[in-house]
Amino acid sequence: MKIGYLGPDGTFSQLAASKLEKSLSNVDVEKVAYASIPSLIAAAGSGEVDAAVLPIENSLEGGVNTTLDCLAFECDLSITKEILIKVRQNLLSKTDMKNIKKIYSHPQPIGQCSRFLAKNFSNVEIVYTNSTAQAAAFAAKDTSSAALGGESLADKYSLNILAQGIEDNPGNTTRFVVAKKNPPPIAEADKTSIVFNVDNKPGALFKMLSIFDIFGINMVKIESRPAKTVLGEYVFFVDINGSTKDENIERDLEIVKYKSTFFKILGTYKEEKNGRD
Amino acid sequence: MKIGYLGPDGTFSQLAASKLEKSLSNVDVEKVAYASIPSLIAAAGSGEVDAAVLPIENSLEGGVNTTLDCLAFECDLSITKEILIKVRQNLLSKTDMKNIKKIYSHPQPIGQCSRFLAKNFSNVEIVYTNSTAQAAAFAAKDTSSAALGGESLADKYSLNILAQGIEDNPGNTTRFVVAKKNPPPIAEADKTSIVFNVDNKPGALFKMLSIFDIFGINMVKIESRPAKTVLGEYVFFVDINGSTKDENIERDLEIVKYKSTFFKILGTYKEEKNGRD
Repeated sequence: MKIGYLGPDGTFSQLAASKLEKSLSNVDVEKVAYASIPSLIAAAGSGEVDAAVLPIENSLEGGVNTTLDCLAFECDLSITKEILIKVRQNLLSKTDMKNIKKIYSHPQPIGQCSRFLAKNFSNVEIVYTNSTAQAAAFAAKDTSSAALGGESLADKYSLNILAQGIEDNPGNTTRFVVAKKNPPPIAEADKTSIVFNVDNKPGALFKMLSIFDIFGINMVKIESRPAKTVLGEYVFFVDINGSTKDENIERDLEIVKYKSTFFKILGTYKEEKNGRD
Repeated sequence: MKIGYLGPDGTFSQLAASKLEKSLSNVDVEKVAYASIPSLIAAAGSGEVDAAVLPIENSLEGGVNTTLDCLAFECDLSITKEILIKVRQNLLSKTDMKNIKKIYSHPQPIGQCSRFLAKNFSNVEIVYTNSTAQAAAFAAKDTSSAALGGESLADKYSLNILAQGIEDNPGNTTRFVVAKKNPPPIAEADKTSIVFNVDNKPGALFKMLSIFDIFGINMVKIESRPAKTVLGEYVFFVDINGSTKDENIERDLEIVKYKSTFFKILGTYKEEKNGRD
């Protein structure tokens, strides 16, 4: 079985792929790194890999736009599993705190550490990189700089850990999903992810949510994203408790689909409880 | 009057600041560029500038996390105005299409041009920069690269425009807000922005939205963001039609405040209609 993930090595995406590998006992796994989320999703779509491990949401920084938009609009993969990874960010450098002139990292960790950065480095240049591993590579070359990233990058790039756990909240967690093309149904599924639009009319979202209320269905998440048409038109990513095989949910989703012009079931899978890492 | 905006020059933020300046006839305006959204918000908080022009939402890429989170959690500024800017992205380079090895830009334009990039440059390295102006500066130095950004950067950095209007949707618009400390009330206000949390209980959001339904208040936008506590806890940014001086809205917001543990009025101001640019 080939598992695709967002490279390069040393990032939290690789950790998530390893966690998936461990959960698959008795299966020969080959892990393949991809340079971007769209290329990873395309590889799962074409059968180049059997599963894609995709970051979808962080507890501090929110939804991962590219993953959400690709799943909604650009592919026909289904979510088969979720993986939660506790994310601890560190300040990694060759130098010490007071000599840092530049800090490299991916926009997600920069957002996750915004209070730490505002407090300690309000006048230091912040430079976006494509991954935390790339940030560490830059910090290894430029000795008056630092990177934000996972602990494992310190060893890999011979950097010192100047500060640990610098994310704005100690509960910082990233949720990954495993997406496959035409997966078989999952017997123990108890969570379903959907995406739909609503009319741009007063009360339209409220009316749509009232359908879930009628069926007593628990919405564990709602996230809006632009419909990519005009400003003010949105689609809603909703996670609900229950499987699409439950008759109650089947009937609910039939009505949601009927009342929207864009509707897609992103997957029905087993929920992972927070705090297991 | 000092207006702060997100620099460097040549970005869409500068365009928004210029649009604000034009709307203030008979006022002496000085425009001041800041390197980051938090530093710009801090400057407006301390009185260093009288107003901050902040990007808050793009029709393709969605909310600007830093602005939303700063307005909700980190400052006591109020929104006094919104400014809509039509955003046309271009491919800017010293070389021609087939010789491009790298494309530089800010994550927002990269997201806005995702389909163009996937179609034409699926194997080209994409490099994040802190602004479109920085991307143009890099593309001017590295002749086998290109930048994504506004037309005005072509002249400024002596780059050729290889492709125009490459955003995924021609309606691409960024919404900016003007935020001030302790602004006087705005007589013609007809739009109000608020942020609140809901209990992490089944149906809690639906119940909260039913308050707006009871008062017949039109919600023009709802956006969820992490509450920055644990995964699965959210705050909701909601824009409604009407001013906080309307009795109907005053009563509605009183109940929303009573039913939430976190509630903040971000501002009440005049709505700008889409399509004026």
